[in-house]
Amino acid sequence: MAPLTKYFTPGDSPGLNAGPPSENESLTLAYQTYGAPDNPAVLIPTCFSGKMNSTLSFLYGSEGSILKDYFVVVCGLLGGSESSSPSNAPDTLRGNNFPKISYEDNIHLQYALCRALGIDQLAAYIGFSMAGQQGYYMATMYPDFTKRLVVLASAARTSWHNKAFLEGPKAALESSIDWQDGRYTEPASSGTRAFARVYSTWALSSAWFRQEQWKRLGCASVEEYLTKFWDKAMGSWDAHDLMCMMQCWRLGDISDHGPVKGDLAAALASIKAKVLLMPSRTDLYFPTEDSFEELKHLKSGEVKVIESVWGHLAGGEWGPREDQEFIEKEVKRFLSG
Amino acid sequence: MAPLTKYFTPGDSPGLNAGPPSENESLTLAYQTYGAPDNPAVLIPTCFSGKMNSTLSFLYGSEGSILKDYFVVVCGLLGGSESSSPSNAPDTLRGNNFPKISYEDNIHLQYALCRALGIDQLAAYIGFSMAGQQGYYMATMYPDFTKRLVVLASAARTSWHNKAFLEGPKAALESSIDWQDGRYTEPASSGTRAFARVYSTWALSSAWFRQEQWKRLGCASVEEYLTKFWDKAMGSWDAHDLMCMMQCWRLGDISDHGPVKGDLAAALASIKAKVLLMPSRTDLYFPTEDSFEELKHLKSGEVKVIESVWGHLAGGEWGPREDQEFIEKEVKRFLSG
Repeated sequence: MAPLTKYFTPGDSPGLNAGPPSENESLTLAYQTYGAPDNPAVLIPTCFSGKMNSTLSFLYGSEGSILKDYFVVVCGLLGGSESSSPSNAPDTLRGNNFPKISYEDNIHLQYALCRALGIDQLAAYIGFSMAGQQGYYMATMYPDFTKRLVVLASAARTSWHNKAFLEGPKAALESSIDWQDGRYTEPASSGTRAFARVYSTWALSSAWFRQEQWKRLGCASVEEYLTKFWDKAMGSWDAHDLMCMMQCWRLGDISDHGPVKGDLAAALASIKAKVLLMPSRTDLYFPTEDSFEELKHLKSGEVKVIESVWGHLAGGEWGPREDQEFIEKEVKRFLSG
Repeated sequence: MAPLTKYFTPGDSPGLNAGPPSENESLTLAYQTYGAPDNPAVLIPTCFSGKMNSTLSFLYGSEGSILKDYFVVVCGLLGGSESSSPSNAPDTLRGNNFPKISYEDNIHLQYALCRALGIDQLAAYIGFSMAGQQGYYMATMYPDFTKRLVVLASAARTSWHNKAFLEGPKAALESSIDWQDGRYTEPASSGTRAFARVYSTWALSSAWFRQEQWKRLGCASVEEYLTKFWDKAMGSWDAHDLMCMMQCWRLGDISDHGPVKGDLAAALASIKAKVLLMPSRTDLYFPTEDSFEELKHLKSGEVKVIESVWGHLAGGEWGPREDQEFIEKEVKRFLSG
């Protein structure tokens, strides 16, 4: 059974007892906790278009979960429809009026939430994709706060290639018939389905298609796969929420917080946490090469490549069981090291 | 100076003296010829969004062209705005009324054109991308007609990955505000720019972006590159023409013409031409792996990989000088063998 979703706002706001985002002018974090609060704490945020209930369910949901002896906090990415987002903000902040969100906004809130929950230090921060980027930010912005960092299919800086590919879904949505410069009143479904269609092929690999892996998902054809898994999932998101998360992603660059602004190597070298990087061999967003480049600069880092044809998806909740088992094995080892 | 563009229609039509497509109800091929007609003949068609004047200009345009001793025929892909296309057909066949075009339509016309020009056999058929697929079709549909086939960054069958990625630009255009179910009366610029934006990142590689190769094109930023090279080029095409070429591309599969329908290996084995396959190491459309798979079945084939970070573009007119020189060297050797 999924745990209760709770809400947090910092400062003068109602703290751990905040109501849902629609009731708060200030940014509100949706979160769930699993396990006993006096266990060592692990923070797991959601990724682009992820939801708390399913986020890293492969880590917590499996038989004999590798996190059963931890106090697990899962929180929603700002813009991700559970924490404050263009779709759920008070009327005055909805849609085009919602502020531009940064990784910094997420990290400051997550840190405040952890402190409010009585967590002085995280045993680990675990994140897939945009959540891995959040982890890199946490390790750079609050260098003493997390002992370990697990980065699944992600990178410390969003690459130019990644930024360029994100321009595709963005253009598809912004030029769509129902986007209306962001002033849509009915769901911009035509635009969000186009967004999802553009996005979908980047998420996997040519080898995945060559091997007709969609059959493992019970789909008879690529067309069925695209319709069943993308139109109905990402294609049904709120358009502003997708754009909100995406613009945050585009800005990903921890060198903003290192000793020399713009110097990625220096920022990586400033990280005190032990870091486990797990890129996927066929990831078209965050290539394995970039993880090995990062490794050169980390004080304490290791790379374990997920040898998979599942592209970017290999690193997260949508990956196949064998990749999830490999991740669990490596994360379990890393957590006990 | 570019040679004169001429027009060809077969059968009862005016043959080599046909007027432009707007004057013909039947499909019309635009073509240009270079060199003396009694030289050995080489046929070079255009690729997706290519134009005759620039098509393989690197082969014919360079100092001491490797094709100077040949009779070179360049012809336009149907749907490519020079040969019959939704944008230039007679009024009754414009836009949505234009027929669905296949590789077979192109090849039958090209064969008829060559025969009308007095060509009994081609010394070589050279094609990049969709033009490489046309070459594969020619070698399968008319197995005795071409002695040699050069396939640059292409494949005998459009892969599922390729088809899935093409769904992206298609969705962006079809959901755009100005597509109007294909009944636009003003250029669908918003849609075609979105189409180009989606398409653009697939054309190159993550390494190209990592190395900031856009600077070699005189661009200060990725944004400038996208605007200057994609919005203004592909983004200004007629929307129906883009869709027309793309649906042909999607259907690419020479196994329709082999001894056993659907058996790609058998179709490849039926090819009598000597084949030179030149995939690009970083091509996201037509991966090198697929070329090596094809090689296994060809009677007489070889693979020379273009070791380039220019992705798909490495194989054609938009590639960098060093890749073009490598192609020229290999093609020259292959033609004399």
